[in-house]
Amino acid sequence: MSGNRKIADGVSRRALFGTTAKIATVAGLGVSGLAHGLLSSSPARAATGNAVVEPGDLDEYYGFWSSGQSGEVRILGVPSMRELIRVPVFNRCSATGWGQTNESLKILTEGLLPSTRKFLESRGGTYLNGDAHHPHMSFTDGTYDGRYIFINDKANTRVARIRCDIMKTDKIIEIPNASDIHGLRPQKFPRTGYVFANGEHRIPVPNDGSILDEPEKYHAIFSAIDGDTMKVAWQVMVDGNLDNTDADYQGKYVVSTCYNSEEGVTLAEMTSSEQDWAVVFDIKAIEEAVKTGDFKTFEGDTPVIDGRKGSKYTRYIPISNSPHGCNTAPDGRHIVINGKLSPTVSVIDVTKLPDVFADKIEPRGCIVAEPELGLGPLHTAFDGRGNAYTTLFLDSQMVKWNIDKAIRAFKGEKADPIIQKLDVQYQPGHNHTSMGETKDADGKWLVSLNKFSKDRFLNVGPLKPENEQLIDLSGDGMKVVHDGPTFAEPHDSIIVHRSVVNPVSVWDRNDPMFADARRQAEADGVDLDWAEDVIRDGNKVRVYMHSVAPTFSLESFTVRQGDEVTVYITNMDDIDDLTHGFCLNNHGIAMEIGPQATASVTFTASKPGVYWYYCQWFCHALHMEMRGRMFVEPTGT
Amino acid sequence: MSGNRKIADGVSRRALFGTTAKIATVAGLGVSGLAHGLLSSSPARAATGNAVVEPGDLDEYYGFWSSGQSGEVRILGVPSMRELIRVPVFNRCSATGWGQTNESLKILTEGLLPSTRKFLESRGGTYLNGDAHHPHMSFTDGTYDGRYIFINDKANTRVARIRCDIMKTDKIIEIPNASDIHGLRPQKFPRTGYVFANGEHRIPVPNDGSILDEPEKYHAIFSAIDGDTMKVAWQVMVDGNLDNTDADYQGKYVVSTCYNSEEGVTLAEMTSSEQDWAVVFDIKAIEEAVKTGDFKTFEGDTPVIDGRKGSKYTRYIPISNSPHGCNTAPDGRHIVINGKLSPTVSVIDVTKLPDVFADKIEPRGCIVAEPELGLGPLHTAFDGRGNAYTTLFLDSQMVKWNIDKAIRAFKGEKADPIIQKLDVQYQPGHNHTSMGETKDADGKWLVSLNKFSKDRFLNVGPLKPENEQLIDLSGDGMKVVHDGPTFAEPHDSIIVHRSVVNPVSVWDRNDPMFADARRQAEADGVDLDWAEDVIRDGNKVRVYMHSVAPTFSLESFTVRQGDEVTVYITNMDDIDDLTHGFCLNNHGIAMEIGPQATASVTFTASKPGVYWYYCQWFCHALHMEMRGRMFVEPTGT
Repeated sequence: MSGNRKIADGVSRRALFGTTAKIATVAGLGVSGLAHGLLSSSPARAATGNAVVEPGDLDEYYGFWSSGQSGEVRILGVPSMRELIRVPVFNRCSATGWGQTNESLKILTEGLLPSTRKFLESRGGTYLNGDAHHPHMSFTDGTYDGRYIFINDKANTRVARIRCDIMKTDKIIEIPNASDIHGLRPQKFPRTGYVFANGEHRIPVPNDGSILDEPEKYHAIFSAIDGDTMKVAWQVMVDGNLDNTDADYQGKYVVSTCYNSEEGVTLAEMTSSEQDWAVVFDIKAIEEAVKTGDFKTFEGDTPVIDGRKGSKYTRYIPISNSPHGCNTAPDGRHIVINGKLSPTVSVIDVTKLPDVFADKIEPRGCIVAEPELGLGPLHTAFDGRGNAYTTLFLDSQMVKWNIDKAIRAFKGEKADPIIQKLDVQYQPGHNHTSMGETKDADGKWLVSLNKFSKDRFLNVGPLKPENEQLIDLSGDGMKVVHDGPTFAEPHDSIIVHRSVVNPVSVWDRNDPMFADARRQAEADGVDLDWAEDVIRDGNKVRVYMHSVAPTFSLESFTVRQGDEVTVYITNMDDIDDLTHGFCLNNHGIAMEIGPQATASVTFTASKPGVYWYYCQWFCHALHMEMRGRMFVEPTGT
Repeated sequence: MSGNRKIADGVSRRALFGTTAKIATVAGLGVSGLAHGLLSSSPARAATGNAVVEPGDLDEYYGFWSSGQSGEVRILGVPSMRELIRVPVFNRCSATGWGQTNESLKILTEGLLPSTRKFLESRGGTYLNGDAHHPHMSFTDGTYDGRYIFINDKANTRVARIRCDIMKTDKIIEIPNASDIHGLRPQKFPRTGYVFANGEHRIPVPNDGSILDEPEKYHAIFSAIDGDTMKVAWQVMVDGNLDNTDADYQGKYVVSTCYNSEEGVTLAEMTSSEQDWAVVFDIKAIEEAVKTGDFKTFEGDTPVIDGRKGSKYTRYIPISNSPHGCNTAPDGRHIVINGKLSPTVSVIDVTKLPDVFADKIEPRGCIVAEPELGLGPLHTAFDGRGNAYTTLFLDSQMVKWNIDKAIRAFKGEKADPIIQKLDVQYQPGHNHTSMGETKDADGKWLVSLNKFSKDRFLNVGPLKPENEQLIDLSGDGMKVVHDGPTFAEPHDSIIVHRSVVNPVSVWDRNDPMFADARRQAEADGVDLDWAEDVIRDGNKVRVYMHSVAPTFSLESFTVRQGDEVTVYITNMDDIDDLTHGFCLNNHGIAMEIGPQATASVTFTASKPGVYWYYCQWFCHALHMEMRGRMFVEPTGT
């Protein structure tokens, strides 16, 4: 079979994947010792301990989980690890009508570039997928402020924002000049402020077909988005492929990891060099460049600053071999760069960055520790007590280490920073601690987001769940207390204390989400709240109704074949948890209407006949009777 | 506000919803005593007991969960209540490309009626939503056989089948002549065989616009689908709105509940009568009618038998007030009809049905018990020890009662069938016991699928999760051991012992799911398995590649602007859990390719430039480097 077939220069799958127990050295990658491969199955049983949340008790933390290629955000309770709700973002949601209602279509389309809007014209106007990696909450003064969640879409180069009062996506923008937004982090200080986003893949700028197979002319683009307006404030062109990013606690610098310093386009080329880098951006200097006009513009009129090697706006800090995760410690001083193909992590001291930018010290002069942790270090989390927790992808382990001891060892002292290594099941990517990316890191819980579950759950066919494991940090050491299977994929997460998050239960009737509907109703002379009106406007028909369980205000309405029909539903129930739905049978139409919300949908009534609409969100003992009929009069066309 | 506004004749929301504590009598509905409304919040705390599944341990049962308007099927582990995987069915899935790959599009479209296919032409060819209610496994000899899961789509009148070897949907058909498939159950004996499906809403047959607001000319249609071929075998036209259904253990009869015997179209009309019915279908007599030609045909050429009142093929058994759930007991003899708006359930003895059909006894002569259980009985589950568990929607309770005692009480004996009432949180709809709808009911676990969660979880905004509660039946009484929040909606479920389900972990290279791709590759002279070929055929380009972690076999391919491109990916990795993805950036394209599977996607390359494709299903330490470039040469158009 395929096992030992070589498919790229010098790289065989079995060698890299470690499915044999032999110690392998992969040509040119500097990776050796792959004994802990995918097939190593360790028992890792433990009591569930204080992760148990009894029926009726509330979790202490909100978990905001990305879902990778599922394109949504999931809200979990921690420590119960129960999925509380899904928030549709880049995906098409059958239940809520996200991607179909006029309100969601506006959000999905208004932030697209003109060229993309044109491209999508013949495709229903929107993308139906996303690859959502890194959810992060807005900050004020170094800690979460409960306003927004920001998240990237790697697949279609977008960044979205979720309002935490209603837990709905309210803005999605496409990032110009870049390709595939990967790393994303908000500014921590003084507030968010900027949302920093890495365009991972290098492409021609502009990407209009005039440059094709000339990779030396490709560029990677770093973007700073204004989190309040959701417009791109500025961009920086850099060398290498941008990977992950994090901001400091001083509001001065942002750091991004870069792999592929070779700027190759094949696997062999991309991994041929031993040395890659982290690139540091000087925020104030870049803002000054925007003011003074030291930039170019391409699509989107966004200022693009040249931050390639030699620029005064950036510094390139050499790091071994494809660094990946980039994590600022809650001590406000250290940023950990995770080696991926190197067994080390490199610790940057941000207080040394002014000297790096002033060329008083070499770029690597800001590195104050570089402990060797194990194979495949990808991401690091913190407990606020001076310890760091790094995922080892190849070793399938979580390693706990002490930052101070690593610094002392780097200085030459005899100190072993490694405190504990814990097997996880299997192959961890991101990890996260409770409040761990803020100055309020509390060191109670750690999650390990593992890319493979293999034998940890009942077999559900060729497509397995991944496995998010909850690790209790409250005792002497790390202890796995819960295995959580997840559908593709538990890419990244944050764990936020419940005191920070305060959503409403009932919509404000003046919410901007349905302001367009209100404007149209006013123009039509309709009272949107208590509507039961049908307005004909040429071959456009606007049907306004309200719902109070268990009825819609219109028991039927009539249109003509070929009419463009817009149905507006206002849910006038004002009780917690009393969501209604509007589902129009055999028309592929369904949407959610929360208590005191309005939602609308537009379609062409092209089939003559009788079609029932019904409430598809259970509301009442007579829920099944909550329905009405649309009559479509035939026109013979 | 809206609270006390009357919106339908005689029915005010607060009265029906019971949000005040007063005892209300709802005009004409026969419902009295609504003290246990949505706002009654009982503590219901309990130790999690033996529901705890430690990290690394496997669940004893598979739970197959519908997802209501989310349109998918979810596989849970029971008793841990962890979601193991999602199976896309009627929904559009961002992660797997369900609704975008050629393989899924074939399944989603080939079973549609010609009129629907025409309707969807300008809408991308497929529905993007569904309302999936009732998942049930195929039976052999009265118990689950592990072959298939069947599920209905109420929204767009469809029935789907999932193959349990690969846990993927393999057939979806639209049901002709009917509107909104609701109740669905497979034949239990001798095998499935038929899948019975209720068309809930009454419509004109045919529904072509010639009849509009003439509800007296509407009909409801019951369908028997051949579960092996997924073709409709026959249909029966009935009186009333068809609701739920279940089959006997003898292979002779199917029973459906009907509400709205009034055949009204407004809430007031639909609930004006005290008496509705259950309709019993005589399978052998109907099969004979098909043979002898006693039927009509409409769209789809399906035989439609007239089973309205007075027909020899059906019997109408009077039941109080909007019966809802229909559940056959594992004793093989009793079918429980749940009253919904009546506080009673009615127990049919199937051994008396031959006498009903022979007119030797009155239709209600088959009723052998009718215990009064409480307010809003919706569904009943069984423990195989002679006890039944009925959800009380309005009382927010689960009531355990003894079937034999209920029969004795009906005969006039002094016997109280009610054993225990347990508060659930809140407003339960369906319930289900482990193996409870088979002759192997084992009475270990009971789930209560509750429509509201209100205050049971952290507040996640106006849209709350619902709540599936796990109840331990192993002790003296029912005990709630787990609250499980779920995104819309935990409509219905079955709990199947793990010994019955045996999926594969790696695809068979000859699986019919990608037979079309294999045929096309053969026609193109391409070895699909180890392909690295680009075939031009006019302005159609077929790109064949295989993937072995961490590379695609093609590092780039070139097409011209305007080409119709089909990309076929074959995943030649043969290791458990090694799924790859193919995501084409800024094109809205992403799909899953399981180990040893082939998947394909077709699109028009209308944008000139360089576009990266990458693996979006984490596969390897060098996963991020698993990518390639599509060059689109500009044509100036």
